[in-house]
Amino acid sequence: MSDNSFELYAFWRTSATYRVRVALALKGLTAKERIVDLEKGEQRDPEFLKLNPMGAIPALRVSNDAAPLTQSLAILEYLEETAPEPALLPADPLGRARVRSLALMMAADTHPLVVPRVRKVLTGEHGFDAEAWKAWQTRWFTTGLQAMEQRLAAEPDTGTFCHGDRVTIADICLCSIPAVMQVFGIKAEGVPTVDRIVAACNAMPEFADADPFRQEGAPAR
Amino acid sequence: MSDNSFELYAFWRTSATYRVRVALALKGLTAKERIVDLEKGEQRDPEFLKLNPMGAIPALRVSNDAAPLTQSLAILEYLEETAPEPALLPADPLGRARVRSLALMMAADTHPLVVPRVRKVLTGEHGFDAEAWKAWQTRWFTTGLQAMEQRLAAEPDTGTFCHGDRVTIADICLCSIPAVMQVFGIKAEGVPTVDRIVAACNAMPEFADADPFRQEGAPAR
Repeated sequence: MSDNSFELYAFWRTSATYRVRVALALKGLTAKERIVDLEKGEQRDPEFLKLNPMGAIPALRVSNDAAPLTQSLAILEYLEETAPEPALLPADPLGRARVRSLALMMAADTHPLVVPRVRKVLTGEHGFDAEAWKAWQTRWFTTGLQAMEQRLAAEPDTGTFCHGDRVTIADICLCSIPAVMQVFGIKAEGVPTVDRIVAACNAMPEFADADPFRQEGAPAR
Repeated sequence: MSDNSFELYAFWRTSATYRVRVALALKGLTAKERIVDLEKGEQRDPEFLKLNPMGAIPALRVSNDAAPLTQSLAILEYLEETAPEPALLPADPLGRARVRSLALMMAADTHPLVVPRVRKVLTGEHGFDAEAWKAWQTRWFTTGLQAMEQRLAAEPDTGTFCHGDRVTIADICLCSIPAVMQVFGIKAEGVPTVDRIVAACNAMPEFADADPFRQEGAPAR
């Protein structure tokens, strides 16, 4: 299976799928998208579970002989290793550590707190109504972006993008948060460095084309 | 600063610090530990914030000229790149993607849901008492380990350890969850493959010595 026959199991609005879409585009790779409609619970369909028993998206099928790859950051590292140009990590170990640390602040510290399975527990068992859930989302999105702001504004390696003047996986993970915040009508205030870098990314077609509202299955904005 | 003068900002019981302790030990590296007592709020002391403005541990200082590294998975990747032997990732990209995916199921999908800042919000603002918090912890620890069980039991690459017969960062992240579950008196049932692999790891001194109860500042078990 060549890279032209990658298959990406995806849904229009998820933050983790967005990351993979951007990385594929930046690497000049294409993937045929297979929609897994989370609203309809298609991630639990037997056919999909045969492919990915975890019922999780994104999942990137890179070979007919191998299980699809899962976990967005693991997929980004795979793409970096197998399609090294353009590089999405800097060359030096300290720089790579900084970029990965920034990426994890979004993908590990922030996003897992606001996913559907957490909403299901808080609304189903702890009495969260729509307003309380939105406040919960807003809190963790904002906490995450403010922590990013603090680092990006203070650290000397910040440039046009999170790390110098080239896009890295830190930018992809950073932009994946506001990309879904807009889906839920949430905006973080007081994060000017974040806003500047997100705007720089969104001026690139690889980011702009990954906007959730531009994906198949998305509602009109 | 040679590797002998690494400094690890640490606390006895945290899952993410455990991961760094194990990785350093497996690489044959040592770090002087600087205790940041989370019970006393020392992560917010001005002196520590000068070093790491995020007030987060673990933080690994590898050079007097660079800010400490943060985020356990970023630190593990740094150690892998700068001290490649013994390898904690397989050589092939598909294997590396599988190992990173398993690691992220623990470090990103599971652990961030049960950290102190989440406890603070749920107990302080949403009426969680001690019992409700423990049920929350138990739910997410168990969900995470059952998902690991499902993959480890089904996937052909599972061996003595998560991926074949050599320890990888997947094992480190897997073991970091039961290591803190015991601190809170929580045990997951029905995960025999997980239990087998955790036991194989804990038979190694590099894992056993990282047990939270063996660290400076830990209470008697």
